[in-house]
Amino acid sequence: MNITIVGATGAVGIELIKLLGLRKFPLSSLTLLASERSAGRRLDTPVGKVEIKAFDSKYFENQDIVFFATSGEHALEYAPKAVEAGAVVIDNSSAFRLDPNVPLVVPEVNPQAVKQHKGIIANPNCSTIQMVVALYPLHQYSKIKRIIVSTYQAVSGAGQDAIQELNQQLHDHIHDKEIKVKAFTKQIAFNVIPHIDVFQDNGYTKEEMKMVNETWKIFDDSSIKITANCVRVPVIRAHSEAINIETENKITESKARELLSKVDSIKVVDERVNAGYPTPIDASEKMDTYVGRIREDISCDNGLSLWVVADQLWKGAALNAIQIAELLNTEHFRKNH
Amino acid sequence: MNITIVGATGAVGIELIKLLGLRKFPLSSLTLLASERSAGRRLDTPVGKVEIKAFDSKYFENQDIVFFATSGEHALEYAPKAVEAGAVVIDNSSAFRLDPNVPLVVPEVNPQAVKQHKGIIANPNCSTIQMVVALYPLHQYSKIKRIIVSTYQAVSGAGQDAIQELNQQLHDHIHDKEIKVKAFTKQIAFNVIPHIDVFQDNGYTKEEMKMVNETWKIFDDSSIKITANCVRVPVIRAHSEAINIETENKITESKARELLSKVDSIKVVDERVNAGYPTPIDASEKMDTYVGRIREDISCDNGLSLWVVADQLWKGAALNAIQIAELLNTEHFRKNH
Repeated sequence: MNITIVGATGAVGIELIKLLGLRKFPLSSLTLLASERSAGRRLDTPVGKVEIKAFDSKYFENQDIVFFATSGEHALEYAPKAVEAGAVVIDNSSAFRLDPNVPLVVPEVNPQAVKQHKGIIANPNCSTIQMVVALYPLHQYSKIKRIIVSTYQAVSGAGQDAIQELNQQLHDHIHDKEIKVKAFTKQIAFNVIPHIDVFQDNGYTKEEMKMVNETWKIFDDSSIKITANCVRVPVIRAHSEAINIETENKITESKARELLSKVDSIKVVDERVNAGYPTPIDASEKMDTYVGRIREDISCDNGLSLWVVADQLWKGAALNAIQIAELLNTEHFRKNH
Repeated sequence: MNITIVGATGAVGIELIKLLGLRKFPLSSLTLLASERSAGRRLDTPVGKVEIKAFDSKYFENQDIVFFATSGEHALEYAPKAVEAGAVVIDNSSAFRLDPNVPLVVPEVNPQAVKQHKGIIANPNCSTIQMVVALYPLHQYSKIKRIIVSTYQAVSGAGQDAIQELNQQLHDHIHDKEIKVKAFTKQIAFNVIPHIDVFQDNGYTKEEMKMVNETWKIFDDSSIKITANCVRVPVIRAHSEAINIETENKITESKARELLSKVDSIKVVDERVNAGYPTPIDASEKMDTYVGRIREDISCDNGLSLWVVADQLWKGAALNAIQIAELLNTEHFRKNH
């Protein structure tokens, strides 16, 4: 397949290149587009060194799939042009996620939605993806009535500048220099920030409402009650989530463990001993979604509590996007372009 | 008053000395006890330089209050000896907290409980204290039926070694050295660890069950349904908590803000703009409990979501202990020794 990555030098773009190789994706050609600033640089890719080109929609010609790993604004303007040129767009931004004409796909949950696409397929928000992967096997066994989730989100979710800012602040702290704040609203080193994306009228942040609205769309069930508290923590990579759910019927701990263990892409790490649970460092650069701390919630009937960790640049972004491309590549879902 | 601090060189002991000065506590004498290793060192205190003595229960004679800032094991053995010697013990460990003969006191919530003491008064767990301070004004207005809390706990809650370990790991990371793990079960730099204190049979950790059992005792109401997810984060100081509650009757956002703002020791920081919420760095070495992100919980009727931050070494430990001592010092509560 002829593949283009728009935003090839960003936090997600870099992982897309790496994962196309690791997944042995059938590449005929790989085109890397980025800002003028990066043009001319050559990157190692699964098809050898590839020179980055300054973004121009002329490169959309003869492409099978165009991955957008740019801002929502940019995707809104240019994704339709890639579709006009005959490509299928897999967009990592939030621009099209709630558009009723655009499927929002997590391959472990709603692969069939891919078939409905009209040129654009949206990749969900990172914190949503790992949550629905972990909850779907439980939801299939007994309908989930309510979800309460608090997140511990890595700085790389905010891009390369954010990673740089955490490292710089730690460096300045150690060398007793003044700490500067730019990528985040407050110091992130030695701190946590209960604010990701912009505030909405109801007092939730947009990130929190993404977890509500996107879960409804992916599960195709807006009767589920959902609330989220999204918090940035000084972790480089991999998001963690403390999740409490209530289900229609009882799911015992052992049943939950059994249901989750059956899923290929879920790794249950749940020994009740020191280190017997997943942490962000364990999940970094891993394709699986890790689940631990599974226990019956003592504060309600039919409640479960669990701890979910995944690499938000991989399963939360680049890997999920490539899995969508893999779905498109199977005979069953293939469209003729 | 003649005051003794047992464990004067520990993370909490140091803050007790500092806060006795900041609170202008009426000191006749201050005795500092620690391990043999620290004996002979001289510390600055509100009554001048004081030499640390190797722990011996002979120093309990003629003391009005003995603060224990040591392990539960040590307190279990020696607190009764201090009581025999005529002192009142304020114990920071978990040893006596659930003992029906020992009051468990947060002065903003249940000051009257102090009067029941038989020599020992227990200081609650850090994560419990800041939660009950923030929830009590709401609970008084309309009974809380359920609490779901996820914590973001600073390393200093695990003692001096833990602070040292985070700093060492960051140093080793920057200098590309191997990272060693000892105080925690996994690397804490650039990581979060969903495990504080030992695992219980029901899959919760002891820290999580403290938040349940101690809240019941302090509120004198074990009908409240409570669940907790306790997580260590790479923050030096001040714990944060994402809390969702359900109340018997509706509490609107503005009513919640009004109720919380009325309490002297609560600082509401709740603007829905960049930086308009408290973080651990804002609350470090502050006496107040900070509350932000107050919003109606969209996932249930009569639900509220809030974000609570406090310096767990101060309000969560040393300050609360000194406030208990201040209660003892008032005419109303004073006992004759």
